[in-house]
Amino acid sequence: MTARNEERWLLPAGIEEVLPAEAHIVEALRRELLDLYASWGYELVFPPFIDYLESLLTGTGQDLDLQTFKLTDHLTGRLLGIRADMTPQVARIDAHHLRRDTPTRLCYLGTVLHTQADGFASTRSPLQIGAEIYGHGGIASELEILRLIVLTLRTAGIADSYLDLGHVGIYRGLARQAELDAVQEHALFDALQRKAIPEITQLINTFGVTGAVADMLLALAELNGAAALTEAATVLRAAAAPVRAAVDELRQLAAELNRWHPEISVHYDLAELRGYHYKTGAVFAAFVPGWGLEVVRGGRYDDIGQVFGRARPAVGFSTDLKSLLQHGHGLAARYQLLPPITAPWSTDPALHAAIDQLRASGRRVIQALPGAVPETAQHEMQQLVLRDGRWEIQAVSTL
Amino acid sequence: MTARNEERWLLPAGIEEVLPAEAHIVEALRRELLDLYASWGYELVFPPFIDYLESLLTGTGQDLDLQTFKLTDHLTGRLLGIRADMTPQVARIDAHHLRRDTPTRLCYLGTVLHTQADGFASTRSPLQIGAEIYGHGGIASELEILRLIVLTLRTAGIADSYLDLGHVGIYRGLARQAELDAVQEHALFDALQRKAIPEITQLINTFGVTGAVADMLLALAELNGAAALTEAATVLRAAAAPVRAAVDELRQLAAELNRWHPEISVHYDLAELRGYHYKTGAVFAAFVPGWGLEVVRGGRYDDIGQVFGRARPAVGFSTDLKSLLQHGHGLAARYQLLPPITAPWSTDPALHAAIDQLRASGRRVIQALPGAVPETAQHEMQQLVLRDGRWEIQAVSTL
Repeated sequence: MTARNEERWLLPAGIEEVLPAEAHIVEALRRELLDLYASWGYELVFPPFIDYLESLLTGTGQDLDLQTFKLTDHLTGRLLGIRADMTPQVARIDAHHLRRDTPTRLCYLGTVLHTQADGFASTRSPLQIGAEIYGHGGIASELEILRLIVLTLRTAGIADSYLDLGHVGIYRGLARQAELDAVQEHALFDALQRKAIPEITQLINTFGVTGAVADMLLALAELNGAAALTEAATVLRAAAAPVRAAVDELRQLAAELNRWHPEISVHYDLAELRGYHYKTGAVFAAFVPGWGLEVVRGGRYDDIGQVFGRARPAVGFSTDLKSLLQHGHGLAARYQLLPPITAPWSTDPALHAAIDQLRASGRRVIQALPGAVPETAQHEMQQLVLRDGRWEIQAVSTL
Repeated sequence: MTARNEERWLLPAGIEEVLPAEAHIVEALRRELLDLYASWGYELVFPPFIDYLESLLTGTGQDLDLQTFKLTDHLTGRLLGIRADMTPQVARIDAHHLRRDTPTRLCYLGTVLHTQADGFASTRSPLQIGAEIYGHGGIASELEILRLIVLTLRTAGIADSYLDLGHVGIYRGLARQAELDAVQEHALFDALQRKAIPEITQLINTFGVTGAVADMLLALAELNGAAALTEAATVLRAAAAPVRAAVDELRQLAAELNRWHPEISVHYDLAELRGYHYKTGAVFAAFVPGWGLEVVRGGRYDDIGQVFGRARPAVGFSTDLKSLLQHGHGLAARYQLLPPITAPWSTDPALHAAIDQLRASGRRVIQALPGAVPETAQHEMQQLVLRDGRWEIQAVSTL
């Protein structure tokens, strides 16, 4: 029992609480980002925290299933899940509730939970924030999402990030050209993700793939870096039309991005296939030097709304607000508050008029509670004092 | 399979998603309330969504246990719970993390989940918002919380609410005076909550309680209404000192509240014992006519932090932001946005300077995506058009 008592303040691994100094910054950054997305026409939605399991996992592949906490609905006995990603829920809102013919821009923010941390020293409770465009299939919507990623990083004070661009159509097209079946495609995909060259060679041989397409599949693992798109023109010249179209699309997107943000470093990784099972086109990520995990991820996932009754093109991104804070610079200074002001416990109407005015102007005023240790002991504070019949602010003497 | 597909958009009963028109108002009210609490010196905290079960249930009684969804931690096999109330977590933050000697004012906002809805047509996923004072035991802190409740209701546009005040010390003191054991106290408590007079009479007889204390226990069920405090002076005149002290405390609190907010209707219910198992003093609720459930609840729960290593006086309140919205008036008008402005798809730097300026000024500007149905089809919009070499806003013609 004693041991249990002492453990009561422990949090489960990867589950965080946010204390006042940091919570204020989380809230300020949250508002600034949501206001940014709103100013671009993105409408806020709040998907539910729990949902029927099949709604959460629909079309998203097995990874999300393993990451999703399950629980039983006490009312119906049906299986529920805690959302591990909000995109399937936002897709449902577009497909089932809004049903617009025009492009629909949505943004969202909320805690998601993962059964396991993504990587070393990572969280199981990201504060996911993201933006998505439904109903437009061209590179213009991909560019808009990339521009929002850049502005999101800038707002969070992350100056040294780089973007990583890829396109799932390249590998998907080569796999079709090589006539791989689904099992073979998945096995080779897995080896490619790990850039395990000997294994890739062996699989290509085992699957009986030969000639130009075998060379291209093998070369794919090394098509990464700032020059990968240029190299692709040569390396993938024998590829089928869909592969070349995917490379072309990526090239156009990169050119447009460079027009808007020439200051941004862009890497290409043509074998990078994050979310391969539901992504359908360009894939994006943003990295910070010295941190192995991406801080932002996104891409195109057309037809994600199909299972909810309506297939539409879709592109978007998401990030963890707490991870942005961890890598951002200057936020504490930017959101710094003026010190609170204490007021004595008194019913003087003149004092309360002064307090109301200060609070309405955005200042924090704490009315001292009788009999307690004065709040001034805790903070670098100012105080309201009565001088010559008027309530005035003065510094608390720090004798 | 078809049936399942068609059910994918269904939400579990009592679990809501918030769509754009309402989400904008939720967000605006959220900000206004958190800013209000901040201006009174309340510091924001974000407790975690899941926690070890014993941390969530500590000191709060069986009701919360039944309301808490349980799940297993994949990492440790230990039992976790989804928070059904944030107060125990906030108490842990005060007791374990902040450990201040001064009064500590904390506020919080977040979704909590309940296995069962509280009442008819009610939610299982309230968006709980609340404020608490730790470290002060007098009526001054109770008054501050009551004043914040009144301001919260006013901010939410709820004008016709009334407050309901009680004090658990009255029944607790009478039960002691009647020498009831814990089982008897609980049984009578249960009957009192239901105001089941015949049952109360029978229990009092069965327990062998006689004389003045039997009369007082029986009278308690009917001590409610605007005049209950006045009646209590007569009805409870033979009560032991702690009972009379509790009535006195309530009377002082009511007088102070009336000084600040003479416009507020106050009812008393001396047998009302919401949260009896962890409340230790005054209990508050706010009601809206025609709605059976309280929209705000609160009270004093001293020593809630004891199991986390530090017992301090505590008083606070909480409410469901979505319930406030449901009963509030005028919020849609107050938070109404200007219509969005569409801009053509163009790389003209002059256009983008105009767009940036509008967005920075708080307007929403949507850049039309090439090839899609124009966004102007969806909204009552304005648009940016080039006229005489300058980008100007004009209304979209509604031919």
